[in-house]
Parts: sequence; C-alpha cells; structure tokens
Amino acid sequence: MAISEFDIISTYFNKPGLVPDSAQQQHLPLGIGDDCALLSVPAEKQLAMSMDVLVADVHFPVDANSALLAQRALAVNLSDLAAMGARPMAFTLGLSLPDVDEQWLEGFSKGLTLSAQKYRCPLIGGDMTKGPLSITIQVHGLVDAGKAIKRSGACPGDKVYVTGTLGEAGLALKVLNNTLDKITPAEANILKQAYYQPEPRLTTGLASVGLASAAIDISDGLLADLGHIASQSKVGMRIELDKVPVSSTVQSLVGLDKALQYALSAGDDYELALTVAAEQAEMFEAKVEKCGVQLSHIGTVTAGTEVSCIDAAGNSVMLLVQGYQHF
Amino acid sequence: MAISEFDIISTYFNKPGLVPDSAQQQHLPLGIGDDCALLSVPAEKQLAMSMDVLVADVHFPVDANSALLAQRALAVNLSDLAAMGARPMAFTLGLSLPDVDEQWLEGFSKGLTLSAQKYRCPLIGGDMTKGPLSITIQVHGLVDAGKAIKRSGACPGDKVYVTGTLGEAGLALKVLNNTLDKITPAEANILKQAYYQPEPRLTTGLASVGLASAAIDISDGLLADLGHIASQSKVGMRIELDKVPVSSTVQSLVGLDKALQYALSAGDDYELALTVAAEQAEMFEAKVEKCGVQLSHIGTVTAGTEVSCIDAAGNSVMLLVQGYQHF
Repeated sequence: MAISEFDIISTYFNKPGLVPDSAQQQHLPLGIGDDCALLSVPAEKQLAMSMDVLVADVHFPVDANSALLAQRALAVNLSDLAAMGARPMAFTLGLSLPDVDEQWLEGFSKGLTLSAQKYRCPLIGGDMTKGPLSITIQVHGLVDAGKAIKRSGACPGDKVYVTGTLGEAGLALKVLNNTLDKITPAEANILKQAYYQPEPRLTTGLASVGLASAAIDISDGLLADLGHIASQSKVGMRIELDKVPVSSTVQSLVGLDKALQYALSAGDDYELALTVAAEQAEMFEAKVEKCGVQLSHIGTVTAGTEVSCIDAAGNSVMLLVQGYQHF
Repeated sequence: MAISEFDIISTYFNKPGLVPDSAQQQHLPLGIGDDCALLSVPAEKQLAMSMDVLVADVHFPVDANSALLAQRALAVNLSDLAAMGARPMAFTLGLSLPDVDEQWLEGFSKGLTLSAQKYRCPLIGGDMTKGPLSITIQVHGLVDAGKAIKRSGACPGDKVYVTGTLGEAGLALKVLNNTLDKITPAEANILKQAYYQPEPRLTTGLASVGLASAAIDISDGLLADLGHIASQSKVGMRIELDKVPVSSTVQSLVGLDKALQYALSAGDDYELALTVAAEQAEMFEAKVEKCGVQLSHIGTVTAGTEVSCIDAAGNSVMLLVQGYQHF
C-alpha cells in the first residue's frame, strides 16, 4: 500500500522528542500540521534565521548514513546561529526524497531527534516532496536585540581567533570517496565524525556576545571565511600560519604542509573565527575557556584590505588557496 | 570565466526592490550576506512561517518560464500566510540550480522582485547551490498574538465558505503538458495564469481574523483540504455541490461534470476555504465583499467525522475523489 506524505510525517517527524515539548510550546504554540507554524519572540530579543540546502552527490554521498546526515544537516545550520551569538529555538525541514525508503526515514528521524534534543531545537514545520534527495533546513534562534555578532564589526588592531582544530572535515571527503590510502579505522572514524557530527560552537557564540567584534563559522575554508569578515568590515588581516590550529590527525596522515593547506582552505570544519578588540581579549579568552573549547589567537586585524599570511619568522607567505566554490 | 555564488547573489538577488527598503529595515535589520538574517517581531505579534519545496518535473515543467515560476513559488507560500490571517513580512530562498543560466536567473529575479514588491515581502536570506532544479521558499508573516486562524477551530453549525472559483489551476496542468485539445490561446492564458500567478488571498485572510473559526488554502484539492479542517477540528461537513464555484472557463472546456471534478479534487487553486459561526456570517460576508473577493457559501459543518456531498435535490452523492498525493 502506498504511504502518504501525512503518514510519513506522523510516523517519522511529528513525534515526541523531535517536536516541541510542553516547556518549548510556550514560545512555539503551533507546530507541524497547520498552514503555518507560529513562534513567539520575547520582547528585547530578535530572531536570527539561517537556511542551508544540502544536495545528494553535491554536499554528501547519496548513500550516506541517514542518521549521520540528519545530524550534519542540523549542525551546519546551528553553526550559523553560533556565529551570530544566538540561542537555538526551532527549525523547519524541507525534504525531497526520490521514494519512500522507510529504513532511510527511520535513521534520518533518529539522527534528527538526537540533535534536536541535544541542542534544544525542535522541529516545527516544513515540507516534504518527491524529488532528487535534498535536505533544506532553516534554523531560528534568539539573540538579545541589537547584540548579534555580525561579520561587519572587525576593527584594525582586533585580535583574530579560531576555535577547535581545522582540517579534519576537509580530509574526510577523501575518506568518504575512498581515495585516502594507509588510514587506520580509528583515524577514519575521527575524520568521518568531524564531517558528519561537527560540534556547532553555540556556547562559544553565546559567550562572545558583547565581546567579539565580528564572527563567522568556517564553512568555505578559514582564509575564505576570514576574507568575508575582512571585506564586510572593510579591513585586512595578518594571519600567523604557525598559530593556525591544524588537526594532529590530519598532520600525521598527510604531513604538516598538506595539513596546513586543508586547515586554511578546506571548509566544513564549522569552527568559529572571531575578532576581538585587544582590551576585551582577556575577558573573551577566559569566557571561552570556561566553555571548554580550544581557542587559538592566530593573527591581527589590519587597516589594509587583504588577508595576508606570515610564517614563524615573520616573512610574508604567498598562498594559492581558494574557498569552496559553489558552482 | 566562472561566476561565483557570491556574484550571482549580488547580481540577481541582493538588489533594491527585492531586499528590504529603508522602511522595512526597521523590523528586518540584517538581510543577505551574514551568517543569519535578523528579524524583529513587535510586541503583541507572533511570527507565522511556512515552507514549500518546488521540484522541477514534479511540481513544474523543467523548462517553465523562470519569471512565472518565481511568482508561483512566492504566491503558494504567501497563500499559507493568508490561511492563518497573517501579514507578509519577509521570505528566505533556497535555490538549487544545475548550472548558472544567466537568462534563467534574470527572469527568476525579475519575477521574484515583482511579487516581493506587490506583496511587501522582501528577500532576507537563504542559500544557493549546484544541484537538480528546485526552489524552496520560507515565508514569514505577522499575526496578532493568539489570533491566528487555525485548521482546528471549526464547530458544528459553522458555515463553510470558499473564495474565488475553482478548477482552473488543475486543468492548467493539461495545458502545460499539451494534452488538452481544442483550446483557444485566450483560454490557455487564463488557465496558465491561474497556475503560475495564483492570487494569495491575503486581504481576505486578514479580514477573517476574529471571524473565521478555521481556514486552509486549497493546495491539495477542495475536498481533501476541507478534510484536513474536519479531521483537525474533529467535525464533519456537508457540502452542497451546486454551490461550489466552478470556473466558467473550465466548464466551457470540459463540461460541468468534469469541471466539478477538477474543482473538488484538483489542487493548486490557492483559494481559501473557511468556516464561520452562523452569528458571525453576516459581518464576515460584508468584510470579504469589501476585499473585492468572490465568496461562496458551500455547506455546513456537522457533528460527524466525514466530508459528505449532496446535490441540488439534497440527495447524498458518492464521489471518488482524491487529493494530491505527494508520493
């Protein structure tokens, strides 16, 4: 018997754990099943929203584990909230599926539920249709009115920081394509986890409100994303390459030089890059430390217009790096 | 030379007329170009949001005129706001394109700008990626807190209404497929316009707040959509078939019997179906008349659980109709 869109929604999506609980319903009075979802924004807050479209064979292998895929899809969106200093509130899901694969849906629903609970971000609506496999998520979060951390606030003299370590998600694509030799199962797992289960830096983002002058999440690659801050803030940056936190796993697999390339130019790490005025730096570092998140001071905002790199000896380094090209 | 995602966005999407003007920026302080868009919801309002995914070869012909497609994509979403009694505020766009076709983008941008201006609903963000042609739009609108018209409020004794006329968008699919003989260019245009440029009943929706007990927009087909109100309100309905406003164009093309079938079961008309308590009916009818929108009283909410149909003589009519099946 054919299963309808309504059956799929009620079986896999409109279920406790994934949709708002009674506490969340206070601000999310209407979820799945009506013409619209309804959302209340408390006074003195603004709503931050971000949408990401993930397409099979473009952003992920078509046979990817659906539970992991769901976690990745939600995480990359939550990472955008983190970069604004917003707290997750709810998400909507646009799902295009070639056919009704109940095993796939079961896994997808489980992964989505895990992440929705972990990040307190329930599903409140969306759309489902037949079509090529594609996952669109829009997240909604709350930020104190006027306090969102934009890309445009960096000033010359600000310190440039990045959270966590870089390069693993970029190298993971080679594991997913089976084009990386000599890798242990343990190493492969580290890379795959970095790709499928990136940790959106939400606590760091929240802790940075009022302290960071600008922030972005690293989806296109560190230098490309710093370039977005630079162009929108109308500043330059000088990045000290020896300070860039390159993943030790990536170093041991491909050597330092190549690992640095991954760290600088491969996207998908979903760490945060932030700029902070020198006089706020101490308080900022202390707050992020309390979040239990590794933080590296990797450079300085300059009065120029370019993101330049220097080596440990202070010499300028020319790099041919390119961020992720969408077309 | 390759054109980047950023170039496409700045050329076709981040442009005056499509993005918020200075008046709209008061409540939409941050749009395209940062990690998130920001939106302010005035006190005493709630945010209504709805997402629709339109996929090429599923929801529209892959070679459809992109300007018309843009108008349809925004209209079907705005129609969901209309059904809640919400006023449009802003939308986000997820666009998946197989390649950069500048002529297609030019048309799409023009159509989108036309509709964004007409309905005062600017673009504030989204995502663009390579992939099979697909258009995801999420609209956001404002409704007085606690006043949104839900599907669940119909009560036995309420009158059932529908706006406009029905059947044209359903028959239009045959025009788009070139499977309808003996049609004049003028008739073909009427049907195509019904399909590509449905008029979201926003003023009717707003006028119905506080008067209608339930509402839905007709996307799956009149009887299927009335069924959604019935099941969510835990009521039945008795629909008088001779009162259903069948399009005269459709009648003249396929005869009354078939035209009625289109009106009852083909979706895509995006008219509103509403239920109104008998004591509110007079005021409701007067208010909708002021909107200049045709309104038909087509039946009554009953204490049962089924949507049944009767003919002009009051005899029960069995119909084999089915709403749009998504899979």
